[in-house]
Amino acid sequence: MTSESLKPFFDPRGVVVVGASREEEKPGHVIFRVLLENRKKGLLKAPVYGVNPKADYILGEKVFPSVKDIPGEVDLAVIVIPAEHVKRAIEDLGVKGIKAAIIISAGFSEIGRSDLEREVAETAKKHGIRIIGPNCIGVYSPWSGVDTIFLPYTKVLEDGREVLNAPRPSKGFVALISQSGAVGTAALDYMYGEGIGLSHFVSIGNKADVDEVELVEYLGGDDRTRVILLYLENIKRGREFIEVAGKVTLKKPVVVLKAGRTSAGRRAAASHTAALAGVDEVYDAAFRRSGVIRANDIEELFDYAKALAMQPPARGERIGIITDGGGAGVMATDIAEMLGLKVPELQGNARRELEELRERGIFPRYAQLSNPVDLTGSATSEMFVEATRILLESDEVDAVVVLALHQVPGIPDPVKLAREISRLAAGYAKPVVAVDTGWSEAAILERKEFDSMGVPSYPTPERAVKSLSALVRYGKYLSSRGALGRYLQEYLDFKRKNILQMHKNNST
Amino acid sequence: MTSESLKPFFDPRGVVVVGASREEEKPGHVIFRVLLENRKKGLLKAPVYGVNPKADYILGEKVFPSVKDIPGEVDLAVIVIPAEHVKRAIEDLGVKGIKAAIIISAGFSEIGRSDLEREVAETAKKHGIRIIGPNCIGVYSPWSGVDTIFLPYTKVLEDGREVLNAPRPSKGFVALISQSGAVGTAALDYMYGEGIGLSHFVSIGNKADVDEVELVEYLGGDDRTRVILLYLENIKRGREFIEVAGKVTLKKPVVVLKAGRTSAGRRAAASHTAALAGVDEVYDAAFRRSGVIRANDIEELFDYAKALAMQPPARGERIGIITDGGGAGVMATDIAEMLGLKVPELQGNARRELEELRERGIFPRYAQLSNPVDLTGSATSEMFVEATRILLESDEVDAVVVLALHQVPGIPDPVKLAREISRLAAGYAKPVVAVDTGWSEAAILERKEFDSMGVPSYPTPERAVKSLSALVRYGKYLSSRGALGRYLQEYLDFKRKNILQMHKNNST
Repeated sequence: MTSESLKPFFDPRGVVVVGASREEEKPGHVIFRVLLENRKKGLLKAPVYGVNPKADYILGEKVFPSVKDIPGEVDLAVIVIPAEHVKRAIEDLGVKGIKAAIIISAGFSEIGRSDLEREVAETAKKHGIRIIGPNCIGVYSPWSGVDTIFLPYTKVLEDGREVLNAPRPSKGFVALISQSGAVGTAALDYMYGEGIGLSHFVSIGNKADVDEVELVEYLGGDDRTRVILLYLENIKRGREFIEVAGKVTLKKPVVVLKAGRTSAGRRAAASHTAALAGVDEVYDAAFRRSGVIRANDIEELFDYAKALAMQPPARGERIGIITDGGGAGVMATDIAEMLGLKVPELQGNARRELEELRERGIFPRYAQLSNPVDLTGSATSEMFVEATRILLESDEVDAVVVLALHQVPGIPDPVKLAREISRLAAGYAKPVVAVDTGWSEAAILERKEFDSMGVPSYPTPERAVKSLSALVRYGKYLSSRGALGRYLQEYLDFKRKNILQMHKNNST
Repeated sequence: MTSESLKPFFDPRGVVVVGASREEEKPGHVIFRVLLENRKKGLLKAPVYGVNPKADYILGEKVFPSVKDIPGEVDLAVIVIPAEHVKRAIEDLGVKGIKAAIIISAGFSEIGRSDLEREVAETAKKHGIRIIGPNCIGVYSPWSGVDTIFLPYTKVLEDGREVLNAPRPSKGFVALISQSGAVGTAALDYMYGEGIGLSHFVSIGNKADVDEVELVEYLGGDDRTRVILLYLENIKRGREFIEVAGKVTLKKPVVVLKAGRTSAGRRAAASHTAALAGVDEVYDAAFRRSGVIRANDIEELFDYAKALAMQPPARGERIGIITDGGGAGVMATDIAEMLGLKVPELQGNARRELEELRERGIFPRYAQLSNPVDLTGSATSEMFVEATRILLESDEVDAVVVLALHQVPGIPDPVKLAREISRLAAGYAKPVVAVDTGWSEAAILERKEFDSMGVPSYPTPERAVKSLSALVRYGKYLSSRGALGRYLQEYLDFKRKNILQMHKNNST
């Protein structure tokens, strides 16, 4: 029953907000308004209805006393009413034949009212209704216009400035499942700023019915989702999670940020979610076995997501490093070795080709060519492109880090350099990540160009190499399962099909 | 001889550029131009002279065939001529009586010409001339206007846009010493974007004379420098470094990013700096013994710098956490415990006060008050201020992390919240760090306000807690040396005296 029954959450044919409110600050108002707006923009294909027994019109729309009074077809309900009335509302959905409900309302197991939550879940089950929540912020699907995030989109500061408060990432290919609504919203704000496009966001709240297991399975089959990210505090159905993840990771990467790693963290998580989080080592081993990549913090989660969405996994652990800043090359080498990657001294054809360029005076006389390839402060854009080409062609390295610090005089246009290296990289099934350090316009534009052209870029050597290591670990896992070849094929197909959207995400 | 002899590098009475050039792209031109501009702006008090035997006027200024022909007093020379002529130029400085020289020129030990470098160093020594470099980008002192960074300040992209390329951080209290010019420049670009003010920047290059040991000693006595950061690939005078650092760290924090940690990294560093970098464990132990804080990457280096510059060290390792996002609190707890900090369950007065506020309906009914203090998504600005006050007053925690995720409706003005918490924090000698996640205007403005009000802020719980752990480790070190009380006194004096500049740095 799984996949098909989740579809209305992400792509409904009709939506009703149960608890549509007239009061502007209330979630029931915000959700109703946003859905109506998305409908008017043509983003949301489904008609939107409101239910409120005490009103006739809200936001100029006729609302209904009960879902049973709605004339049209509805297959998704968003429930925003006090906890004690939710069971009754679910009964009504049953009568109307609505099979999916997002319960935003809090006041269930998270405050000790597991009894209420159980009743709601049982009622829903009786009617064959799937539930996301309760106690959640619901779903945001930029592709279909479903958006139940009820936090204020902007705020007006006391000095009169109106500022963005809860921005949404644009359409893209990274899915995010969050057990915490607050972390989820904060993460969306982070994604927005990093220019990472979203396929679907789901806040799973108390997980009375739909949980991370089912969602990973569903998103595993979703054409728009290339990478699945999860923020979790516990996993109730551990065995099932591992089984499903083990299948999905053969097709697309799954990255988990699992909080509650320490005993104090678990105590905090327990008081927050009213569920016992298991021992961390068990999770660790299970994730590894099923090809799930683990992130230690929010920054890593999205750094990995960028690399995994934009680049193919590596076929091995040998890294080639190109730089115009010797020290940056040393730092990248250190971090690579500390993560168990190899930075081999180049010996064969690549070394010969690089040395020839130095002998012919095309590379600086004092360029270091053993790996890291240090083009020195006399580096030019042309040298970077040549060195990148040589390492991409070489069978001595499995992945390339381009540390193109833009400050040197020989890179007159860092944006152009990023474009040229990215075009080159697109012709190889070997991962490339890029670094430029700083927050000057030149740095920001260089990184943005890399991102928009499909080469993930980072502000420090460490973040780049760590992200590359995720591609190495994932490649190793896929190889061990005999799945790397097929993955690469599908990955390249996907990239070909979606290249325009990928570029758009990062260039806006 | 040490301290006094370094003064001209940072605050000269007269500067000459030996190798002032007419060609706009050349370092000898850029340096001459920038110094002249700083002189005109009134930033640089010292008169600026140019030496070029083949020109009469450059940039409208009369230039001289030799330093010996300069009429006025000069105590700093910036040398930008081919390596083989540097020795002769140093002889001339001796005749003129100039006692400090920044040798920008490359072509010495870094390319195997240790002989040339030795000759230059010996000649300088004979004349009592101190040298920074060679093979470096020199010095940038925003307070005095000395600036020898010759990289293009802006670049014009092919599409016609002129963009910032090598921005300088504003006046401030963090000193940066870098063995790598490229890393140094990239780090300045990073500081600029993070809004961290600079006291002095020194690129030490081949360290033919002045090295990190002497600079740490000098900056240890510099009134403008509150925190000393170093990027190093090797330390030649290990014993002296430890001795000097051991003294300086009793007065101000020293943070080292030491590259070449792994054997491959050391190989890369050796080829880059032509010096053998020692075994990492030895450095690690020596740093710990002398109170030097070690950073693992550029992000950590500046994250720590911010915390150490803005906040007092902690008197113990017990952390209090306040949040409106349960999951964020769990992550902060995890990282704290993993770093060896404690997140104790609150028991005493603080707990009672918090519970009373909950009972009186001032805190949400389901707020968790054991630590983390989770005010839930119903948190308001007022609750944050109250909870912060209670934890600052409590003797159960030594430091406070405020995770004020701005997205919730109850924080109508995140900037105002940041201001109020910072004002409160300023009244206690207990460190506070702040977190808001995301890149919306609201997030950026909240963090900026915290920073400008003296509470270091970070975009993720992990970066904040890691930075706080630097304050804990440093406090522990100072206590073990019986120096914490005196440090705190000096720190608070410094903060009082410089509060206006501190605010200015971050609010521009």
